[in-house]
Amino acid sequence: MTRYETREVHLARRPDGMPVKDDFRMVTTSLEAPGPGQILVRNILMSVDPYMRVRMAKLPSYPHWELDQVMDGSAIGVVERSEHPELPVGAVVSHRLGWREHAVLDARRAGPVRHVTGIPLAAHLGVLGMAGFTAYIGLTRIGAFAPGESLYVSGAAGAVGNVVGQIARILGAGRVVGSAGTPAKVAYLVDELGFDGAFDYHVESLSDCVAANVPDGIDVYFDNVGGVHLQAALDSMNPHGRVVVCGAIGEYNALREQPGPSNLIYVLTKRLRMEGFTIREHMSAYPAFVAQATTWLLDGQLRSTDTVVWGLGSAVDAFRDLLVGRNIGKMLVRLSEDPAPPPV
Amino acid sequence: MTRYETREVHLARRPDGMPVKDDFRMVTTSLEAPGPGQILVRNILMSVDPYMRVRMAKLPSYPHWELDQVMDGSAIGVVERSEHPELPVGAVVSHRLGWREHAVLDARRAGPVRHVTGIPLAAHLGVLGMAGFTAYIGLTRIGAFAPGESLYVSGAAGAVGNVVGQIARILGAGRVVGSAGTPAKVAYLVDELGFDGAFDYHVESLSDCVAANVPDGIDVYFDNVGGVHLQAALDSMNPHGRVVVCGAIGEYNALREQPGPSNLIYVLTKRLRMEGFTIREHMSAYPAFVAQATTWLLDGQLRSTDTVVWGLGSAVDAFRDLLVGRNIGKMLVRLSEDPAPPPV
Repeated sequence: MTRYETREVHLARRPDGMPVKDDFRMVTTSLEAPGPGQILVRNILMSVDPYMRVRMAKLPSYPHWELDQVMDGSAIGVVERSEHPELPVGAVVSHRLGWREHAVLDARRAGPVRHVTGIPLAAHLGVLGMAGFTAYIGLTRIGAFAPGESLYVSGAAGAVGNVVGQIARILGAGRVVGSAGTPAKVAYLVDELGFDGAFDYHVESLSDCVAANVPDGIDVYFDNVGGVHLQAALDSMNPHGRVVVCGAIGEYNALREQPGPSNLIYVLTKRLRMEGFTIREHMSAYPAFVAQATTWLLDGQLRSTDTVVWGLGSAVDAFRDLLVGRNIGKMLVRLSEDPAPPPV
Repeated sequence: MTRYETREVHLARRPDGMPVKDDFRMVTTSLEAPGPGQILVRNILMSVDPYMRVRMAKLPSYPHWELDQVMDGSAIGVVERSEHPELPVGAVVSHRLGWREHAVLDARRAGPVRHVTGIPLAAHLGVLGMAGFTAYIGLTRIGAFAPGESLYVSGAAGAVGNVVGQIARILGAGRVVGSAGTPAKVAYLVDELGFDGAFDYHVESLSDCVAANVPDGIDVYFDNVGGVHLQAALDSMNPHGRVVVCGAIGEYNALREQPGPSNLIYVLTKRLRMEGFTIREHMSAYPAFVAQATTWLLDGQLRSTDTVVWGLGSAVDAFRDLLVGRNIGKMLVRLSEDPAPPPV
């Protein structure tokens, strides 16, 4: 029986604080040939995301990864063996079996990635993938963002944050402001992505800095960071403002150890709404989002931004770099070259 | 020109922490006779409420009281002079000019209180007044409470909290649990008001105690207290739970000084919604609420509970007692006896 040797990354133990190399293990394994209805995929690109840090812990009401098992996540690959007529050899597909070089899976758990001239494959894991969709759902459905309102987003140069700001601008925001951790990111947000304002959060008073950048107050705060970033935003929220709780990257390595914002009383006095969400519960809106965002990409209103590292052996480093903000846009691990586009 | 001598309570300075006597001043003043369209009211009952502590501070986006001015709040009185045909002498009215023995006001800023046999006047400031209405709106509109769901309310023996639990029970709650600060209150909640469970929050681990009392988790947490009470409730929230931020009596005397809950990450991982509100923005639903709650009162499903002290000179003490939880149900100050009911 044919078997395919490949490599995958296992969770060796639950990280204590910032993940280290020894929390993970590279494992060589072999896959059986695909059975009826299955495909063998060679991964081209895989995603590393902040939420993965939460999966490495064991929290109530949130799925966690098992120890000594391969992790997973969004990936794009090319079909190398197929036992399903709709996804033939050579087809490019997106699926959920990242953190490995090859995967055998049921074809119905993979979706075809349509080649669109001018849109790189990587965009399907970033601005058109779960990151962009998270930005869109968080802003519009959870945040109920309306034209003319002001938006402030933390982690604004990240995979989700940069798309939040861009979509708010497209939807007619009164003001779009983001914070990020380096001068290069700040410049990128303003000069390349059209943010009205951006600042480096390494300042003496984050609260004063937010207030200065959003002088008319914040209607929607899109929180990717949590902790003191949330506290600073609460100070500047307008009455009836919405706080979209999308991530708390600043807290992932210190789960439960940090005090919360000391000004939570503003939720009461300013009549704020603060809501967390997970994108998996909104998937029915995904096709419509992809169609809309593809149009925005093609007409130049929306830009795809990513930071790419090469090789599965670099995936843990890419993930660690992500947690300390070394990326601009989507952080991706490239496992192989893009296939040639289909003949016209 | 006729003038009426009366007394009122002024805010002398903004309290630092727990309000003390010297933060207030009893002032004897005189009122002009009512002009066209006005009435002179002798107050019978006035309300003291936790939100008043917030008005004594000066917070952004929340109305505050001016120094050296009379405070205000809900009150019920009887018309003693009238220049408006619809509110003649002897009519009982509710209005917003509490903290004083008499008031002259435009008749359109007062509403007639209809005498209903079996419903004491005090109920109109409690279960039928803003306290009860706050409970109803918070539970149904902000909390989107549904039959079969579990409710947990802190400050459950307070003016709002006791009504929250009773209405949840009437609406078909799966489980109704409340916390309060004395054994007598706990007994009252279970034995008199029909709560499924109640406990004294003076325990070693509030989180463990909440979890033990709501073994299947909390769908709606109605927060009257904030601080560690919010933190304990977050530990037991079910996915998609709602936190109704109605009050933060535990924080009013220490505004901005306490750290927030250290487990706010549950808003993200459990996809919670947390929302503050102020009852003034929901007044269009008030008449329908009064009609519904009156029916519940008359058929015995809902009970009116209050703690009454006598005399304007005791109003500050009543307010201080309220902040440390010496009341069961609505805290009221009685300024004069109820008038005789109208002839049948």
